[in-house]
Amino acid sequence: MADLTLTTFDWVPEMPRGFVRDLRVRWALEEAALPYRVASVPFDDRGPAHLAHQPFGQVPWLTDGDLSIFESGAILLHLGERSDKLMPSDPRGRVEATKWVFAALNSVEMASLPWAMLKFMGKADDTPAWKFLDGFLEVRLKHLELVLARREWLAGSFSVADILMSDVLRPVDRFDGLTEHPACRDYVARAIARPAFAKAHADQMAHFASADKARGIS
Amino acid sequence: MADLTLTTFDWVPEMPRGFVRDLRVRWALEEAALPYRVASVPFDDRGPAHLAHQPFGQVPWLTDGDLSIFESGAILLHLGERSDKLMPSDPRGRVEATKWVFAALNSVEMASLPWAMLKFMGKADDTPAWKFLDGFLEVRLKHLELVLARREWLAGSFSVADILMSDVLRPVDRFDGLTEHPACRDYVARAIARPAFAKAHADQMAHFASADKARGIS
Repeated sequence: MADLTLTTFDWVPEMPRGFVRDLRVRWALEEAALPYRVASVPFDDRGPAHLAHQPFGQVPWLTDGDLSIFESGAILLHLGERSDKLMPSDPRGRVEATKWVFAALNSVEMASLPWAMLKFMGKADDTPAWKFLDGFLEVRLKHLELVLARREWLAGSFSVADILMSDVLRPVDRFDGLTEHPACRDYVARAIARPAFAKAHADQMAHFASADKARGIS
Repeated sequence: MADLTLTTFDWVPEMPRGFVRDLRVRWALEEAALPYRVASVPFDDRGPAHLAHQPFGQVPWLTDGDLSIFESGAILLHLGERSDKLMPSDPRGRVEATKWVFAALNSVEMASLPWAMLKFMGKADDTPAWKFLDGFLEVRLKHLELVLARREWLAGSFSVADILMSDVLRPVDRFDGLTEHPACRDYVARAIARPAFAKAHADQMAHFASADKARGIS
């Protein structure tokens, strides 16, 4: 196993803490018990060195030896090939996990992230654009509810697909968007009850809290 | 090579024709010169048999022998493992293509699809929700422009990442969203000039046109 380094911001404002996407990677690494280091880049200044690893100026990225990977989905599929605690090792199981990885990011998060951002910014109003987004998310959750009512995890056993789908649903739950979808809500509760999530979450919170100290914020 | 069957709707209204996501799969199959059949499911009635293959009631899905795969990203990664015309066969090249596959679907389409849907529905107005979406897309395109100004294809040579990214940008271009981003616009033009795109597009248009005849629509 080559040396794994996860890079995230040195600091973020209070509101996104616990939701920055390095959490997904920490969680996967903790599930698989893979050793890793955490490195930081400035939140306030995202220059060419940052863009060389993450062209959209976001985090996280993971380096694995001399490979550098951005996009949480790509990182988790990469790690999934390293551990059967993250993805089944047989071809059929890998296909099952992979399709749900994409479903989390391209069928659900496409609707949920703009929805949660607007909720967060207090712009969830009565306008046509908001109503479209709210309806878009509702249709996706309605279908997901039917799936999750019948299974514990998306791809047979727990996999990277569940890390992504539950983390995609967490911001919706934060703004009470799962109240009409009990199977989705129970699924999130089941996922975040895992010790690896608790460790990843605590580590992210501690990372940003220590940055407050460095900045002289109590 | 097992028997490949692509399933799409039997018919769609005129507006989305040429943009239904089976196009991405047709395009990849044509690039790789893989033989395939096309099957249809009812657009008007999406029952349990449909949801068993595509739990969100969307299209496409691909069957490969007894494997059934939904999500265009998952399908294209699966096909990418079959042909080096779709994805480099070395591990480093596969990682490069995979991260741009996710970037297309989770960094760009997350912003572009709601944007294009609202444009299409005439709901691109002056409201806070619309302005957020417009700004969200703009930031992503600004970063992508820097990348595409310096390279012909995203992952070294043409790959499934380019099929996805260019197809994600096509609806933006349709509503004049790329006028300030010439490298993105040129990239789309370069991608859709490929014979495999032309064949895939013509086949999709013919598929839905023949459904018009069956419905007695001239």
